[in-house]
Amino acid sequence: MRMSLDLFFKPKSVAVVGASPKPEKLGYIVIENLIKMGYPGKIYPVNPNYTEIQGLRAYPSVKNIPGLIDLVIILVPADAVIEVLKELAEKGVKHVVISAGGFSEVDEEGVKRQREIVEIGRNAGIRIIGPNTTGIVSTPDRFSTTFVRGYVRPGTVAYVAQTGIFGGLTSSLISTREYFGISRIIGLGNKVDVDDADALEYLENDPETKVIIMHIEGLKESRRFLEVARRVSRKKPIVALKAGKTPAGAKASHSHTASLATNDAIVDAAFKQAGVIRVSNYMDLVNYAKAFAYQQLPRGNRIGVISPSGGLGVMTADVCQTVGLDLARFSDETLSNFKEASPSIIEVGNPYDIWPSITKIGIDTAYKIAIESMIKDENVDSILAGFGPAEGFELRDPSFISAASRKHRDKPIVTYATGDWRMVEQMRQTLEKQSVPVYYSPEDAAQALTVMHRYSRIRAGSR
Amino acid sequence: MRMSLDLFFKPKSVAVVGASPKPEKLGYIVIENLIKMGYPGKIYPVNPNYTEIQGLRAYPSVKNIPGLIDLVIILVPADAVIEVLKELAEKGVKHVVISAGGFSEVDEEGVKRQREIVEIGRNAGIRIIGPNTTGIVSTPDRFSTTFVRGYVRPGTVAYVAQTGIFGGLTSSLISTREYFGISRIIGLGNKVDVDDADALEYLENDPETKVIIMHIEGLKESRRFLEVARRVSRKKPIVALKAGKTPAGAKASHSHTASLATNDAIVDAAFKQAGVIRVSNYMDLVNYAKAFAYQQLPRGNRIGVISPSGGLGVMTADVCQTVGLDLARFSDETLSNFKEASPSIIEVGNPYDIWPSITKIGIDTAYKIAIESMIKDENVDSILAGFGPAEGFELRDPSFISAASRKHRDKPIVTYATGDWRMVEQMRQTLEKQSVPVYYSPEDAAQALTVMHRYSRIRAGSR
Repeated sequence: MRMSLDLFFKPKSVAVVGASPKPEKLGYIVIENLIKMGYPGKIYPVNPNYTEIQGLRAYPSVKNIPGLIDLVIILVPADAVIEVLKELAEKGVKHVVISAGGFSEVDEEGVKRQREIVEIGRNAGIRIIGPNTTGIVSTPDRFSTTFVRGYVRPGTVAYVAQTGIFGGLTSSLISTREYFGISRIIGLGNKVDVDDADALEYLENDPETKVIIMHIEGLKESRRFLEVARRVSRKKPIVALKAGKTPAGAKASHSHTASLATNDAIVDAAFKQAGVIRVSNYMDLVNYAKAFAYQQLPRGNRIGVISPSGGLGVMTADVCQTVGLDLARFSDETLSNFKEASPSIIEVGNPYDIWPSITKIGIDTAYKIAIESMIKDENVDSILAGFGPAEGFELRDPSFISAASRKHRDKPIVTYATGDWRMVEQMRQTLEKQSVPVYYSPEDAAQALTVMHRYSRIRAGSR
Repeated sequence: MRMSLDLFFKPKSVAVVGASPKPEKLGYIVIENLIKMGYPGKIYPVNPNYTEIQGLRAYPSVKNIPGLIDLVIILVPADAVIEVLKELAEKGVKHVVISAGGFSEVDEEGVKRQREIVEIGRNAGIRIIGPNTTGIVSTPDRFSTTFVRGYVRPGTVAYVAQTGIFGGLTSSLISTREYFGISRIIGLGNKVDVDDADALEYLENDPETKVIIMHIEGLKESRRFLEVARRVSRKKPIVALKAGKTPAGAKASHSHTASLATNDAIVDAAFKQAGVIRVSNYMDLVNYAKAFAYQQLPRGNRIGVISPSGGLGVMTADVCQTVGLDLARFSDETLSNFKEASPSIIEVGNPYDIWPSITKIGIDTAYKIAIESMIKDENVDSILAGFGPAEGFELRDPSFISAASRKHRDKPIVTYATGDWRMVEQMRQTLEKQSVPVYYSPEDAAQALTVMHRYSRIRAGSR
């Protein structure tokens, strides 16, 4: 049995080998991040040229640090890593993050170096994350090994990333744009030891994590990964972007993380089998994470659609059918509510074009009746509400939407908004703070609902 | 030969039948829009209950207006339209926009009503836009018939819209979010007379229009449309969203604009044959318009890629191959520039992972060398540059990008940015003001380049 990964996420002490007092250096940023996050454990900067770094006592070597060290971050260049690792083995350190690149992803010498690392680690029982990565961010524990600057918003989505810069950019995007936030980031890099399966196993029982998103280039031990994923996907949604799927991508991936090409059709089938939701587009990682983080799962695929214009209703009907959602047949009660809310000349249906109702009873009442009727309607499994904010056509207080969504434990509401950009963004922020996802197009909203419906079936055991 | 549409876009006088002094009424907003835009022609409000509306003299009927009226906007309800139209025929009016819904899209009576309109129009030689639409916006002429509030940004993209609200929302999105702007909006509605083919023919020789985007639900006289499109697409790109493509969408479309279902595979093939670029996603109308409005067409499909991270490089390579772009083989000069700009350990290639170069020579110089080398490189037809703005990793002045793009008349540059949202948005605004498109993902950027490449072939006569 392998050692738990727990100390990667909540070490009581951390040494930074390659710490630096120069703000432009990675060895500076790592410590700065720890201090900014309010990490409550001990920080030991290691650098033979300084006695103090950022107000902390610096040590010439890990050997000089008194007592146990739970975790060590190695920031020195590739050719110095092996010596450091040997010292850590002697010192009895059991958890190490190796940040430097310059291993199997560059050349033959790098491959050799990496092999040596694996051997030292295995013999000394050291668990290694990396090399060629930023390692860990653990928001509930105010801990980070990353050398990328920037705030990480705490939340319920865990992110298993192949590499550092990409992981950093995505987490920055999420933290600065979204409200759902991140529980853990695990940047795996070259995966000489800790790999995707280990990460999933850790997250499986992590009470801080509700949703798992992954960026994968290469999979080692893919059989074990699929086995673990199959189990974990029954408990938490796993959304994965597996890159390197074309020959051109695989070639680029080889020089990036030394990942080997795999037959992409096999990956596709295996992911499906394991209940992993695969995405091809970068933004879908964020779009789907949002839906799962905010909303409950639907019981079926019968969707109720509200459209701010007839044209958008037609487009929404198209995309629903394309992605496998059925337009619900509204109950008589719903239809009579809509009929009453609209001018007499209007035929109501699904999609429900809400514009005529807006002209009759005003935008707030029109949407309130539409959403609350669909929440009550037994024929509706999920709601896709579109908004077209414009001067004079803005909801005064959209909080009835999240209130309605909380009334039903298995009927998700997702929305999209288009029109005046300032109002669209304001609406996105207001609604998302209340856990109602807002996309920019009916396509993105419908895709999110399909994926939620698919996951509700994965969870129930059908794939 | 049919009468020119010119007076729809630049009438010297306009009467608004159904004008209103109440700010919540459509008949108020139409006049407000005209005044706000600074329409230089004469405005005649028509409403028997008032003698003055918004400071303008109001008339009980068009008959009472002295002299010629170039264009009349009819805002009264459907059942009053026929009487008005008869008066216009007597008065000799030749251009009419009918806004009201309540025709063939609602019921049998509406169908009958619509038939009558067509007859009156034909007998009197009146050209009609609508019914069931907002009609025209013509920014160079400061003219509008629309009853949707909001600023329309002047620019070079014409928008042929099926319906009013959808058209209004899209134009509002473009005007408040994008910098390329709109030359003309033509909201066709039920298309009893002026249709898509007429709109295209007008735009064909419109000096204000460089790019045409279309939202189509139903096509009348599709043979003529395809004939005209085939000719116009040789001169200007036509990007079209044809909705109602699934049975669900077609059903919704029938009750929306009375459009009949068409076999979607036939539409697809016909559009291709006619050189019309078809999109399925709402946001692609905007995304592609932006690329065409800002950048020159490429000569071939060999793409040079710059990535802010190795991971994004792999994803970009994937998407390029998927959409049919070839990763260029950089010239020896380019490769040696990149080699020199990167730490010695790094292998450079395409995608060019710029992160190592940033750590060596700083972000501004790194991108400058990358972009300028690719602009010079004869093996590169187009450039896709990715950015990952983060604290300390921001371009000080990105104007070298647009400068480089202007150096080459057939080498487009498109970009994407992800990371800190505030910085991403700032970058988008800065670069797009300088006519360099910024998307949020490598997928969107690559899609835009593929479509540009496809159009360069359409223009050259291959489809």
